[in-house]
Amino acid sequence: MSNTEFGFISSVARLFADIPRGGFDAIGDDCTCIGIGGGESLVISTDMLVENVHFLRDASSPYELGCKSLLVNLSDVAAMGARPAASLLSLSLPRDATGAWAEEFMRGYHDISKRWGVALVGGDTTSSEGGIAVNVVALGRCPTEYIKRRSDAVPGDAICVTGRLGASAAGLRDILAGMADTDYARCHRLGRARVDEGAWLGGRAEVHAMMDISDGIASDLRHIMECSGVGAEVHTECIPTDVDVETAVCGGEDYELMLTVDAGCSDKLREDYNARFGDELHVIGRIVGSADGRIVWLDNGRRIAPDWRGFEHY
Amino acid sequence: MSNTEFGFISSVARLFADIPRGGFDAIGDDCTCIGIGGGESLVISTDMLVENVHFLRDASSPYELGCKSLLVNLSDVAAMGARPAASLLSLSLPRDATGAWAEEFMRGYHDISKRWGVALVGGDTTSSEGGIAVNVVALGRCPTEYIKRRSDAVPGDAICVTGRLGASAAGLRDILAGMADTDYARCHRLGRARVDEGAWLGGRAEVHAMMDISDGIASDLRHIMECSGVGAEVHTECIPTDVDVETAVCGGEDYELMLTVDAGCSDKLREDYNARFGDELHVIGRIVGSADGRIVWLDNGRRIAPDWRGFEHY
Repeated sequence: MSNTEFGFISSVARLFADIPRGGFDAIGDDCTCIGIGGGESLVISTDMLVENVHFLRDASSPYELGCKSLLVNLSDVAAMGARPAASLLSLSLPRDATGAWAEEFMRGYHDISKRWGVALVGGDTTSSEGGIAVNVVALGRCPTEYIKRRSDAVPGDAICVTGRLGASAAGLRDILAGMADTDYARCHRLGRARVDEGAWLGGRAEVHAMMDISDGIASDLRHIMECSGVGAEVHTECIPTDVDVETAVCGGEDYELMLTVDAGCSDKLREDYNARFGDELHVIGRIVGSADGRIVWLDNGRRIAPDWRGFEHY
Repeated sequence: MSNTEFGFISSVARLFADIPRGGFDAIGDDCTCIGIGGGESLVISTDMLVENVHFLRDASSPYELGCKSLLVNLSDVAAMGARPAASLLSLSLPRDATGAWAEEFMRGYHDISKRWGVALVGGDTTSSEGGIAVNVVALGRCPTEYIKRRSDAVPGDAICVTGRLGASAAGLRDILAGMADTDYARCHRLGRARVDEGAWLGGRAEVHAMMDISDGIASDLRHIMECSGVGAEVHTECIPTDVDVETAVCGGEDYELMLTVDAGCSDKLREDYNARFGDELHVIGRIVGSADGRIVWLDNGRRIAPDWRGFEHY
């Protein structure tokens, strides 16, 4: 489920509690998982992108949108510690987005598929009397023991993030201000997926919980807290960003990974990550026992009380 | 993929031919399949329903639409010979379809889920600046040897259909004429899935090709012909229907099953089907060797040349 609309999602979860799950995970993570024999699991994510909600047709090229539609789903698969294998694509296209528009969209979708070896194995195409709607299902595989869930954080864990936060939100701001040609704007339009990083982190037992950052850590970290029944302290001065801290923690669509790591092993993990990817894994805080649902924000050790909520589409 | 928009789908299939399939089926059937160990396979379908293309909000209650959204996907799973196990639901809802509308939709979706023991294992909710869009992914399981593909028809096979054809198309006609309360109209709004029948037919080795009838046999039978490289003769007087033959063969959304059966075994299969389901499996024609892409229509043995094309959304 999306990270927003908690009320609707939890009422749906209650409504469906009377149906046996047949080996599938409950709702709550980026993907659902099912064992497929030989110690392996299949992970499955689904995401819908809707015109004028998730993108503006004037601001994104069809090629970029084709890339992003798949990337945001590959990010969900990577966040489980799995490697993407296949996708299904449903497209609802108004008359003025068929022909050349659809071909450019598919060229972007194909290039990302090809880059990561993801087969297109099914889908649906339909017309639209409104805007464009795109639904992607991504399927990934991994050893079952690699799977990282939001519910696996443990008090004492270091909270880490990949990459730098806030660029996509800054890009959205640029686009809305009419500046579509900035690096931030391109970053927002394309999306991202930490495919190799996610699969590699999946193989590390010292990584406990993991998810992708789609609505900003001010919102997403709360999901780990809720699912794991823990609290969290964040050192705002440690948040890796090229923009202001509020944009970095509240902005949507970074598609970086957030993970919690056995504190005794985090230095070694960061060293290995750096050796493998030539990039830093940043420690931004730690998991604590208290679970009142609020993130404790610290600025150089001093507690602050900002009104940071994260990005909400819905 | 949808049964329409052949040109777009085949150009997409060509574009993606350079990516290894990783054990997944090629595009072409109602579902894609992947082996999950122990001689079992997982089958996966996806379908998008869009307001003012697949349904009119004034003509369908949210409860009915919730039922139909899942049923049409269960039909795809049944058409592979598999039993549905789980679904993922993406909903894009404009402001005036949240709240009570969404709850009623979910009540319908739940009742069908519960009826067939289908778990809801994931999804996405988002707002919409246009109409309602619903994307459902259905997952089913079955012994791998049960899987029925469109490509498995053999010259000499009897062509059979479950149920009676044309009621949903007649219902759409009623709805468009302002008569929303007819039995046909209800049939159109709710959809159908031959869940038990599909899983049972999956277990019969004498059943070769199978698919669900979503665009009328005038269109759908051509998919079996194309995928199997065969021709087909249809005895129009044998088509089970309560409406006219043209509506029965060209109308959309019957969601009955069409199957081809080893001719020597079809009497026994029909007898067993009748004993199991208290309903008839109708023989409407046979698969032949010639493959010029045209269905041979016969009326009491006399060849006729109607311009029947099947239902096209796109």
